[in-house]
Order: sequence, then C-alpha cells, then structure tokens
Amino acid sequence: MKPQKKSVPNNERLAEVYRTAAQIILRKGYDATSINDIANALGMTKAGLYHYINGKKELLFDIMNFGLDELDEEVVTPARAIADPSARLRFIIASHAQLVTRGQGAITILVDEITALQPAQNRIITRRKREYFDRLRGVLDELKSQGKLHDVDTTAATFSLLGMINWLSRWFRQDGDLTQGQVAEQITRIALNGLLRPESRSTQSVFKVVKKR
Amino acid sequence: MKPQKKSVPNNERLAEVYRTAAQIILRKGYDATSINDIANALGMTKAGLYHYINGKKELLFDIMNFGLDELDEEVVTPARAIADPSARLRFIIASHAQLVTRGQGAITILVDEITALQPAQNRIITRRKREYFDRLRGVLDELKSQGKLHDVDTTAATFSLLGMINWLSRWFRQDGDLTQGQVAEQITRIALNGLLRPESRSTQSVFKVVKKR
Repeated sequence: MKPQKKSVPNNERLAEVYRTAAQIILRKGYDATSINDIANALGMTKAGLYHYINGKKELLFDIMNFGLDELDEEVVTPARAIADPSARLRFIIASHAQLVTRGQGAITILVDEITALQPAQNRIITRRKREYFDRLRGVLDELKSQGKLHDVDTTAATFSLLGMINWLSRWFRQDGDLTQGQVAEQITRIALNGLLRPESRSTQSVFKVVKKR
Repeated sequence: MKPQKKSVPNNERLAEVYRTAAQIILRKGYDATSINDIANALGMTKAGLYHYINGKKELLFDIMNFGLDELDEEVVTPARAIADPSARLRFIIASHAQLVTRGQGAITILVDEITALQPAQNRIITRRKREYFDRLRGVLDELKSQGKLHDVDTTAATFSLLGMINWLSRWFRQDGDLTQGQVAEQITRIALNGLLRPESRSTQSVFKVVKKR
C-alpha cells in the first residue's frame, strides 16, 4: 500500500504526533529512531502515521517548523500589536514561557539542539530562529535607546532570556508545585527585573522597591 | 593487545579526550558513537585512547563526573569561603559562567541532556546535579530570609539561573564579539539585577539606580 501524503490532518492529533516523535528522537537520537518506533508509541499503524507525516527524511524539519509556526502565531504576531516596548517584552517572555510549558517541551529542545537536518532544511530553520532572535534583540535595542534598559549588552541579554525560557522545557513539570501560569509569571518577573530599569517596569514593581527603602 | 586501564593520565590531555568525545556523542548520539570515532577525531589509536578511558560503557559517566568535578573545584569549593551570600552568589554565577565558556560547552550539554546512563550511574549523576542545585537554591533562600531577594520563587529562580548559564554552552563563541570574561560579567549582571533588590547589589549598581531618578 502506498503511504498517503499528509492532507488536512486534525491539528491537535498532528501536534500529538510531533510531540511524541520529538520525545522519541530526543531519547534515541534521530538516526536510531524509526517510523515504526513513533507509530508504536502513538498506538497507530505505520500507514496511519503516514496520514500525518511525509516520511522520516522530512519529519525533523516538519516538527521544527511546527514549533516555529506556533511561536509565530502565539508570540510574534500578537506582540506586533503592542506599541510600548516594555509591555511588548513582557508579553513575549510570558507567552513564550507559556508555550514551552504547555507541552511543547520536547519540540523546543529539538528545535534548539538537533542538527541532523539536510543543508537546505538547516538553512531555513536557522534563518527562522535567527529572525526570532533578531526580533527579540530589536525590542531590547529599542528599550536601550529609550534609556529603559540596564547597562547590558543586548546580544548577551537576548541569549540569556532564551536560555531561561528554553530551559523550562527541561525542568517544568505539569504536576509540580508551580502551575504553568505561575512559572511564566516568575520567569517574566526575573527577566524584567534583570533587564529593565526599575522606573521602566510596571507600577507595582516600582512601589515594591520604593517601599523597601 | 589488551587495552591498558587508565592510570595517571595527563589532565589536560584527558580534558581534551573528554571534550572531543562529548562533541561526537552530541553530534552522533551515544549509541551511534564508537570508540574508533573518538580515537580518529583525536588522531589517536584505539589502544592509545584506552590509556585515558575505561571503555564505552563507562565513558559517558566518566565525562559527566569530570564536568561535575570541575564544577566542584572551581565553583563550589571556593564559594564556601565567601561568607556574604550576595558576594557568594556573584562568585558562583561568574565562575560557573567562566567554566562553561572555557571550552567545557559540550560537556555541560552532555551532563544536562544525555540520559543514556545505566541506572546506578544515573542515580549518582542525578544526585550530584541535585546537590549543586540545592546549594545554589540555598544561597537564594539565605538572601530571601535576609530580605535581599526580589519577590521570586527560589526554585524557579535557581532553574532560571542555570538556564542562563548552561545556555552559554550553545551560543558562546571564542571568536565572537564578547570575550569570555565579558560574557561572564554580562550574565552575572543580568542575573543579579533579576534576583537581588537594588540595595543588596554592589555600591556601583545602587548609585546608578539612584542617579537615574
């Protein structure tokens, strides 16, 4: 039987396929992972799995694009509508952290670590990651030019932000002490304290600092 | 010829063996990596390599312990001598960041990501990582009890710190715009701004904040 090409798959099921595949690839390595491993983990037949994926050669690339599409839809696009750069930064950190804790952990790790792509695919993924990096650094540059940023290098600061957020994919547990929302709030608070001058943060934080003195 | 057991190897050469092995394991995956791959990359014979390592079964564990030993020697032990918790935190962040940028990048990634250990080995590595985590969180708890910490959860803050520091292993380039020392300084600054109340940071930072108002 000729495997069917991906047509209009159920998005939630597709996300589950990608998440499961990402987990297996992280555990076994891309080379050692077979389509059968993924089908078995999902309780699907190999033919059934081919409704969702184009084959192993495309799978890694498809998963990474899926992760980056979600980042675009849930973080980048809504952030464009926020004029104030402090508020925009707050939104980007909080929504990106939410995305990572919402079960996209394995996909986040895959996008940032696995290098088993073909050269042409690799160029596309690298460009997409770079675009996100540049956009985030652009917000910090804007804040710096307005005197709202602590005296920090915006490149190092952008990587530090991404480190804090991406590291969530390793430690956040759905059954842990902190909820998804609480963790996103904590990360946002630490990051904004770390980057923005007190007077550029929310009124609440400024009052807290003032009261303490 | 029977491979010789590791005796008293040159430490610098051993570090190079571990770094190279870590890079290959990260690229190919542990299962797909052979002792020959590592020997070839080092320009050594397989027999020569066995002067330094005990065999593939022990290699991953040995590399991780090596990385954690360095962390003990260069970060944990000297930090014990620093009584003031703000100064201790500053030292831990700066020296850990320096360690990661000093060419231990691949080993850092390995310690934090690869799970291909045998169960008994895994317990030991997990315990050692946990000890470091607890020690770092202990410093934050101490600062919190003294009212020197921003209103943040110390568990989330500890993971955020480790995320920032460990992420360095991915982005820092020896030939980049920032030197090792500058990067460590940037990470330390962002982290201390993010965690410590202004009046608990160095005199310099307090003056900067005050002057700005």
